[in-house]
Amino acid sequence: MSLRSTLEFLLYDWLQAESLTARERFGDHSRETFDAVLDTCERIAREKYAPFNRTVDTQEPQFDGEKVILPQCTYDARQAYADSGMLSAAQDYKMGGMQLPYTVEAAANSFFAAASISIGSNMLTSGNANAIMAHGSKMQQQVFAANEFNGRWAGTMCLSEPQAGSSLSDISTRAEPDGADFEGDALGPRYRLKGNKMWISSGDHELTENIVHLVLAKIPGPDGKPVLGVKGISLFIVPKKLVDAEGRLTGGRNDVALAGLNHKLGWRGTTNTLLNFGEGKYPVRGSAGAGLDGAGGGAIGYLVGKPGEGLKCMFHMMNEARISIGMAATMLGLAGYHASLEYAQNRPQGRPTGAGGKDATRPQSRIIEHADVRRMLLAQKSYGEGALALNLFCARLVDEQHTGAPEAVDEARLLLEVLTPIAKSWPSEFCLEANSLAIQIHGGYGYTRDFPVEQYWRDNRLNMIHEGTHGIQAMDLLGRKVLMEGGRGLQLLAGRIDSTIEKAMRHEMLAAYAKQLAAALAEVGAATKAAWATGEAQEALANAVPYMQAFGHVVLAWTWLDVALAVLERDASLSMAANVGRMGAMRYFFHYELPRISAWLNVVRQRDMTCAQLPESAF
Amino acid sequence: MSLRSTLEFLLYDWLQAESLTARERFGDHSRETFDAVLDTCERIAREKYAPFNRTVDTQEPQFDGEKVILPQCTYDARQAYADSGMLSAAQDYKMGGMQLPYTVEAAANSFFAAASISIGSNMLTSGNANAIMAHGSKMQQQVFAANEFNGRWAGTMCLSEPQAGSSLSDISTRAEPDGADFEGDALGPRYRLKGNKMWISSGDHELTENIVHLVLAKIPGPDGKPVLGVKGISLFIVPKKLVDAEGRLTGGRNDVALAGLNHKLGWRGTTNTLLNFGEGKYPVRGSAGAGLDGAGGGAIGYLVGKPGEGLKCMFHMMNEARISIGMAATMLGLAGYHASLEYAQNRPQGRPTGAGGKDATRPQSRIIEHADVRRMLLAQKSYGEGALALNLFCARLVDEQHTGAPEAVDEARLLLEVLTPIAKSWPSEFCLEANSLAIQIHGGYGYTRDFPVEQYWRDNRLNMIHEGTHGIQAMDLLGRKVLMEGGRGLQLLAGRIDSTIEKAMRHEMLAAYAKQLAAALAEVGAATKAAWATGEAQEALANAVPYMQAFGHVVLAWTWLDVALAVLERDASLSMAANVGRMGAMRYFFHYELPRISAWLNVVRQRDMTCAQLPESAF
Repeated sequence: MSLRSTLEFLLYDWLQAESLTARERFGDHSRETFDAVLDTCERIAREKYAPFNRTVDTQEPQFDGEKVILPQCTYDARQAYADSGMLSAAQDYKMGGMQLPYTVEAAANSFFAAASISIGSNMLTSGNANAIMAHGSKMQQQVFAANEFNGRWAGTMCLSEPQAGSSLSDISTRAEPDGADFEGDALGPRYRLKGNKMWISSGDHELTENIVHLVLAKIPGPDGKPVLGVKGISLFIVPKKLVDAEGRLTGGRNDVALAGLNHKLGWRGTTNTLLNFGEGKYPVRGSAGAGLDGAGGGAIGYLVGKPGEGLKCMFHMMNEARISIGMAATMLGLAGYHASLEYAQNRPQGRPTGAGGKDATRPQSRIIEHADVRRMLLAQKSYGEGALALNLFCARLVDEQHTGAPEAVDEARLLLEVLTPIAKSWPSEFCLEANSLAIQIHGGYGYTRDFPVEQYWRDNRLNMIHEGTHGIQAMDLLGRKVLMEGGRGLQLLAGRIDSTIEKAMRHEMLAAYAKQLAAALAEVGAATKAAWATGEAQEALANAVPYMQAFGHVVLAWTWLDVALAVLERDASLSMAANVGRMGAMRYFFHYELPRISAWLNVVRQRDMTCAQLPESAF
Repeated sequence: MSLRSTLEFLLYDWLQAESLTARERFGDHSRETFDAVLDTCERIAREKYAPFNRTVDTQEPQFDGEKVILPQCTYDARQAYADSGMLSAAQDYKMGGMQLPYTVEAAANSFFAAASISIGSNMLTSGNANAIMAHGSKMQQQVFAANEFNGRWAGTMCLSEPQAGSSLSDISTRAEPDGADFEGDALGPRYRLKGNKMWISSGDHELTENIVHLVLAKIPGPDGKPVLGVKGISLFIVPKKLVDAEGRLTGGRNDVALAGLNHKLGWRGTTNTLLNFGEGKYPVRGSAGAGLDGAGGGAIGYLVGKPGEGLKCMFHMMNEARISIGMAATMLGLAGYHASLEYAQNRPQGRPTGAGGKDATRPQSRIIEHADVRRMLLAQKSYGEGALALNLFCARLVDEQHTGAPEAVDEARLLLEVLTPIAKSWPSEFCLEANSLAIQIHGGYGYTRDFPVEQYWRDNRLNMIHEGTHGIQAMDLLGRKVLMEGGRGLQLLAGRIDSTIEKAMRHEMLAAYAKQLAAALAEVGAATKAAWATGEAQEALANAVPYMQAFGHVVLAWTWLDVALAVLERDASLSMAANVGRMGAMRYFFHYELPRISAWLNVVRQRDMTCAQLPESAF
């Protein structure tokens, strides 16, 4: 099935996205306007992204000492995206947006992820501007966010440092009040920043006239030292070029310097950088009376929100950022699925097996006729389409959180807390595995750069690392999310799963799967309790990743069962091939995948300390 | 632990390699001569291979229209390898060899695989010459094999074609008797070959003065058409440059032309080629009376063995070829393990967790102190060292097959038949997973080309594809090997496993694992029967890969239990850190890995046809 038809089934038939148009915010929308957005994005992705996915892989960003050089296709793709209005699609009309539901925005953006994940980092610009909308002053919104939404400027997120990745509390970038200007100019309280930021996507380029960096840094305490831990972290807007309150580039270059490009395994179309803030390459003179001048001054930054709340501001955006990573992983998985399906349907290899083995007199088979190729295709389908369903479901929860009735808002918030680690980690792991299967189906050809699948696999490997590694997601899930509010999030999720199980029990075709899911859910519940039975975090979390893998598989099984219910509701006799396929992918998941949870939960339940306790000298 | 100490433990303490010196063929050898070989190879690998692994990845082979251009380091590495005598190490003294046991040869070659898997394809040259020794005439041995063993010439294996990879019976390269010369010259019956060969490693280069291609081709039947199926396939020696019976390059260029280089995901140091045979780029005139002349003649080839027995000759070499792929995958896994272990021991990140969460006042932890990093390290160790043990065990069986007592020879042969698909497939799959974990431990840095782990992962991805894909190995195992000789191979293996279980039952520390292994073995046995219960190959083989995965995990668990016995025999109190590590890796395997087999065997037992039966239109 095409990506478009899968998206439409999930959006309209399963998630009832059209019902959102009954809400005031989305009142001007209709199925037609949603489809128009999908049409536009599908077309731009097909014309401006997909044909250049290999180009941006081979023509990596170059730094000539002053500027970053990118291939022309990156400029064209970015321009087409900005022109489409997608950067501000979800924003209010008054910000120039179209008040599109996030669910539809996420679905539309998926076309770009499938066509070329690394050409654009447009999501970062939207995310950056969203953070400013949520936590910045009116003026910061008007100057910075508005110029990102309209496509004039791009945005970044500067969190990690060379020595601090997963452990953000250890960042050492400092922000000191800019002397007499501490009260700030119109753009907010002014600080001077010094430090290095690592892994900054789109950290420098000439795609836009300016770049708005959102930077985490520490304001020294009364003793002049940085405050320890996360409480010392604040958030700053640090533009590449200084601007005035009208958004004019009046102040010349800010002291943000590109220190180097990272040369990566994949995702090569995106300029990934090490940035130096305030090291004096582009010195900014202190303003009158600031007592600062010349090289030592630091990069100018404007505080966003309150001092010490930098991480809180960032975490506010984390759910959507993580869903978008999950979506990226998913779309790479589906891109590989579609490529390998096409290959399998066209490549002849081998002969049909008769009673006495292979029969050389019969015509060659296409490889889709071989059982193991079908297994690898169905695995990819069940991973990719299942992950897509889960991510769209999470996107739908975001809309619920923003526009639902009060009780629904709270439930959506809590469900998102529990589901986000899965929405991010599960596709990162299993759609990567899907990409490996896509290579395998291609045989030796899949191992060459003449076919797209090896690039999907390389690109996808990043998703288990960025925006919180697999290990971080697992600690978040088992160490925080399942415990928070007295376990209410987990109970809520279990309630939703039970409700699907109950409905599925009434279907002859689904009852056995409903039972299997109920048993699996009970197994996860028991393992959760057993993990925390001693109350010792070290024991509970020793096997947090296997726990997350099992949890994820149960969530995906639930997703597939719920999708199957939607299938049967619309097409009880399975008259459409697409629905036969959905039921097949669901069955695959229950037969081949869900039984895997026992091995994962085994070590969780037993609080197995084999790994944690092995002496370092024994490795 | 270093690779060397792991190798020595497995070779001497576990496999009793020294006992081989009691055999006549190895009578001149001793632990000292074995160690000297290991020393030499370890040194050459450290000096000539490891420093250039990234060089050969970035400076891919180039074709200037006439010649293949390779970096200097490839010449140097090849020369050092040839000078070491390793090309002929296992050969008779009279062939210039040192009559080294294959076990020690495989162990010694492992250093090169770990240092740079793709610099040399020396294994292909040895394998080629071994095939000629096994099936060629005396003259072919003296002219071709001897000049490969002494390093003058290199060798290739030309099996696949662009349209025929897994399905060798569909090759279309033709070999026609060379007219009046059919009786042949001194080098054997002469044929003219025409066709294209794909994926030929080291198919062209200037590293040696000549290249000896071993080529599968079809001799037309009486009707002038190629014989259908594998029975029509014969084996030919096709030298790049024509030679006389003294091995002199007297005849100029043979009509073997480089048609193109394959640009691969990894393994980039090896020149991988498409070769055209007999298409007229280097026309070879027919000999007097042959009635052939000019471009249309074809490349000259000499029949090896009997017509129609080409595949049989090749399969003779298959066990060793597949063990060497398993070894390559294993060493890449271990290379990643050692790199990520070193990184984990040196990279500070995060803080120790106290009662109230992370404690920012305490010094940073190194990442090896985090439980999930330890899990990822121990997984790699158990995959890599377990796979190494299995592959060395298989190498030891090859020696048994060559030099054991008659009954042992037969048992070794049969065990190898059953174990070879595992020795090849299991490391290809799980040491690839190990490489992914090595990347994960490095975080963002692991995703850059500044660290070696991403290359290991790319290089390793080939091993599930070449020398018989995963799917082919699985069909071989479940479709042929477990059935052959009335299931005697499987029974023999089960007997060996039972014997380990019996010994382990007597150890307090191992008894529980022995029981777990016994249950797992029974589960595999039952699944094997259930798979074939209907006698329908299509049902039995529908889940051949999950079967192979489970079978492999049982074999590895057995290997680890047997290694643990050797540990306890020598160091019952586990006074050495290395032995604590081995026991830890063994425990990891039984706690985290062996339980996975149930999910795999589930679908085998039920002869699940979900994938096989899904209509093509539903994908």
